[in-house]
Amino acid sequence: MAISCFYCEDGEKRRSLMIEICSLSVSTLYLNRDQKHKGRCVLKFKDHKTDLSALTQEENTAFFTDLRKVSQALNELFHPAKINYAIYGDLVPHLHVHIVPKYENGLQWGGPFSDDIPKLLLSDDEYRILIDAIREKLN
Amino acid sequence: MAISCFYCEDGEKRRSLMIEICSLSVSTLYLNRDQKHKGRCVLKFKDHKTDLSALTQEENTAFFTDLRKVSQALNELFHPAKINYAIYGDLVPHLHVHIVPKYENGLQWGGPFSDDIPKLLLSDDEYRILIDAIREKLN
Repeated sequence: MAISCFYCEDGEKRRSLMIEICSLSVSTLYLNRDQKHKGRCVLKFKDHKTDLSALTQEENTAFFTDLRKVSQALNELFHPAKINYAIYGDLVPHLHVHIVPKYENGLQWGGPFSDDIPKLLLSDDEYRILIDAIREKLN
Repeated sequence: MAISCFYCEDGEKRRSLMIEICSLSVSTLYLNRDQKHKGRCVLKFKDHKTDLSALTQEENTAFFTDLRKVSQALNELFHPAKINYAIYGDLVPHLHVHIVPKYENGLQWGGPFSDDIPKLLLSDDEYRILIDAIREKLN
């Protein structure tokens, strides 16, 4: 566990940002509380590795197999026009992918997604419906 | 070949933006002409697939194996503090990854990279030195 990595701590900070959906082979999938892009998730690698170059070949294959499965599930459920995937993490270097469904002529269509606009938070029931749907699709 | 996909056309538009470095197993690696992030590249999937969910398992594994190799090469050559990876492509949906080395306290450190500032173009000789170094590291 890395000091002050909120993914490793897995406490209040992480829970304030996202809700756990399920574990996959080498990763954990979370639903972003901010749902201004419907279906937005984060896929976190299970251990504190900071870059693809630090993964073994087997870990790399398993991680992106997990990502492809999530991609297929989100496409089938929400029919986005495109999904954006981003690994940033300059300041939160624990390997994680932002998975951001984009909808044609919808929010931030045609440009990189960004978080410099107000969040769209849902009710607990609305989160539960999304999470159950994604979890069921992945099983 | 998809109509009006500049990656498939592989003509003047593509060449105006990036220079081919080499082919990998299922992808082609390009150096961005805009080098405001030193070592910035694009990794393009060989065929016109638009999302991870459209890849076979074998293609997915090979593509991200290629990406990991590039990541290792760029880390060894340029020692960035972090590499950002992004698949956007709302308007250019041919599967490609932006590979953007970030340097601690350098340009756009701590936030997503963006292209809304002036480009940093190099001389042909300067491009050649970067390309030769990356190609040699990958071989």
